[in-house]
Amino acid sequence: MSLDHAARKPQDRLSALLAEEMERVNDLIRERMASRHAPRIPEVTAHLVEAGGKRLRPMLTLAAARLFGYQGSHHIRLAATVEFIHTATLLHDDVVDESRQRRGRPTANLLWDNKSSVLVGDYLFARAFQLMVETESLRVLDILSDAAATIAEGEVLQLQAAQNLATTEEIYLQVVRGKTAALFAAATESGAVIAGADAAAQRAMSEYGDALGIAFQIADDLLDWQGDAGATGKNVGDDFRERKLTMPLIKAVAAADADERAFWVRTIERGDQRDGDLETARRLLERHDALAATRAEAMGWADRARASLALLPDHELRHVLDALAHYVVMRIS
Amino acid sequence: MSLDHAARKPQDRLSALLAEEMERVNDLIRERMASRHAPRIPEVTAHLVEAGGKRLRPMLTLAAARLFGYQGSHHIRLAATVEFIHTATLLHDDVVDESRQRRGRPTANLLWDNKSSVLVGDYLFARAFQLMVETESLRVLDILSDAAATIAEGEVLQLQAAQNLATTEEIYLQVVRGKTAALFAAATESGAVIAGADAAAQRAMSEYGDALGIAFQIADDLLDWQGDAGATGKNVGDDFRERKLTMPLIKAVAAADADERAFWVRTIERGDQRDGDLETARRLLERHDALAATRAEAMGWADRARASLALLPDHELRHVLDALAHYVVMRIS
Repeated sequence: MSLDHAARKPQDRLSALLAEEMERVNDLIRERMASRHAPRIPEVTAHLVEAGGKRLRPMLTLAAARLFGYQGSHHIRLAATVEFIHTATLLHDDVVDESRQRRGRPTANLLWDNKSSVLVGDYLFARAFQLMVETESLRVLDILSDAAATIAEGEVLQLQAAQNLATTEEIYLQVVRGKTAALFAAATESGAVIAGADAAAQRAMSEYGDALGIAFQIADDLLDWQGDAGATGKNVGDDFRERKLTMPLIKAVAAADADERAFWVRTIERGDQRDGDLETARRLLERHDALAATRAEAMGWADRARASLALLPDHELRHVLDALAHYVVMRIS
Repeated sequence: MSLDHAARKPQDRLSALLAEEMERVNDLIRERMASRHAPRIPEVTAHLVEAGGKRLRPMLTLAAARLFGYQGSHHIRLAATVEFIHTATLLHDDVVDESRQRRGRPTANLLWDNKSSVLVGDYLFARAFQLMVETESLRVLDILSDAAATIAEGEVLQLQAAQNLATTEEIYLQVVRGKTAALFAAATESGAVIAGADAAAQRAMSEYGDALGIAFQIADDLLDWQGDAGATGKNVGDDFRERKLTMPLIKAVAAADADERAFWVRTIERGDQRDGDLETARRLLERHDALAATRAEAMGWADRARASLALLPDHELRHVLDALAHYVVMRIS
């Protein structure tokens, strides 16, 4: 590994190493998002798929398959499957959250309507299942359909947890698994499975994806409180304004005295937010070291992700995955 | 077959013949719609699943499997899969159509919110895929994931076709396949496949489900124009008011002279509907024999459904399926 390589962002190194295969994934995505009858479908999908997402999830699948020396072409289908599930989830998320912007562009629900977002999301889910069936691997189908259930369950859980001060860190972790980690884990594990990796290696790749996703999401939730809008594309304090219970807030609520609790009941449960409340909220988080403790948890999950790589083949991609786990928490350290 | 039997509705005869297996399907549905973490999920699902739907689709799967002497238990999983896909579709449909009532009860989107309907629908889709993976039949997975894609594509197509006078009967047929026939066909074909029926018999069962679903949907769309609200649960003229292009209207538009066309442009494309317009619309449909021609098409599809049964084993269930195809068009004859 050259110094030049070491200085580049790990996702850019992944992109470079997997460029030729990602081209095939993108071709397959374009081919399968088409619809002979309903031109609205590729319109909506293209808006999202071409919007310049990082394509991190399909790259994880390709990397996992390559790491175990896979020579076939099913990993291309799996990578497209993972991206379709992700895109479908984003379409439905934006309807549920009534979002108006994603990746700096107006959302599909704003450009077309909620109906199109719901139905095109359903179409992409179905196309994802068709693609994964083509791999003819029941184990892979198991992994990906379980992930789809965890994702949907996590989203419902998040809906219930919103504005609810009784939300525990355990529930938060379930939400995070649904939101991010389940698909990361399915992406890496299914890549290993299709490549014929042994059971221990499959498990290691699943643990890597899970821990990477959790570290990534906790870091994202931390940045919402501590700033760096450039890194997340969100404004600082969005979660407070939307009354979302993420790890920093959950920790502060758990440590709150009676006065503080009254403040959280008013601002989060009742949604009565006034000028200066965000500043007060941040001060309370600082007082209970909630930001530092959250940062430590994110670091811990990143360490777990890196540790799970220990037994894997010594391969350039393993080093890049290791660097990636380091990178997702670098922006909060 | 006794006279008593012959006098009963075919779906009641199906219920009686398949009672014990439907009990197992219902148990499985209740078990799989649970969620350890998110109690909102079984609440929303139970509202719909327990609402007393006819459960026609899962009965078709069970009947197809039994017709070919199936002795295993995968048909129970398939039947539950089919009902989950159907329920998920209803949840999303009610969001897209902004419906307030289904089967005489308030819809889930009204009782909870659109968010819950979207996400619980996604959860049921995922649970359906988990269930079908458990059958370990790649052919069945193929059939059901193709059906899911046709369903979603048909819904998007319906969205595009609404208020669009250029909608052809060919597009209408695609919409109908997505709305009804694709899942009927997947239900009957997958039952035959799991039972190990030969290729010709599988094809016959697929054709039966497809033709039955199309006959059923055309009849439903005809009733919306010619009345009998009791049979459909809809009010006469709903499709006109919602500016939906179904077969009777498509036929009348195709035969319209210049004045009539101006009427359709005003009422359907522009949505400018006034007192007496529904009566005028019905008169125009009568003038061009659109209702009679639609009735003939529904009858034709019912005949095709019955014809496709010709080569199947001589079995009581075959006779009930034959009676069912007759029954779906009896209400319009």
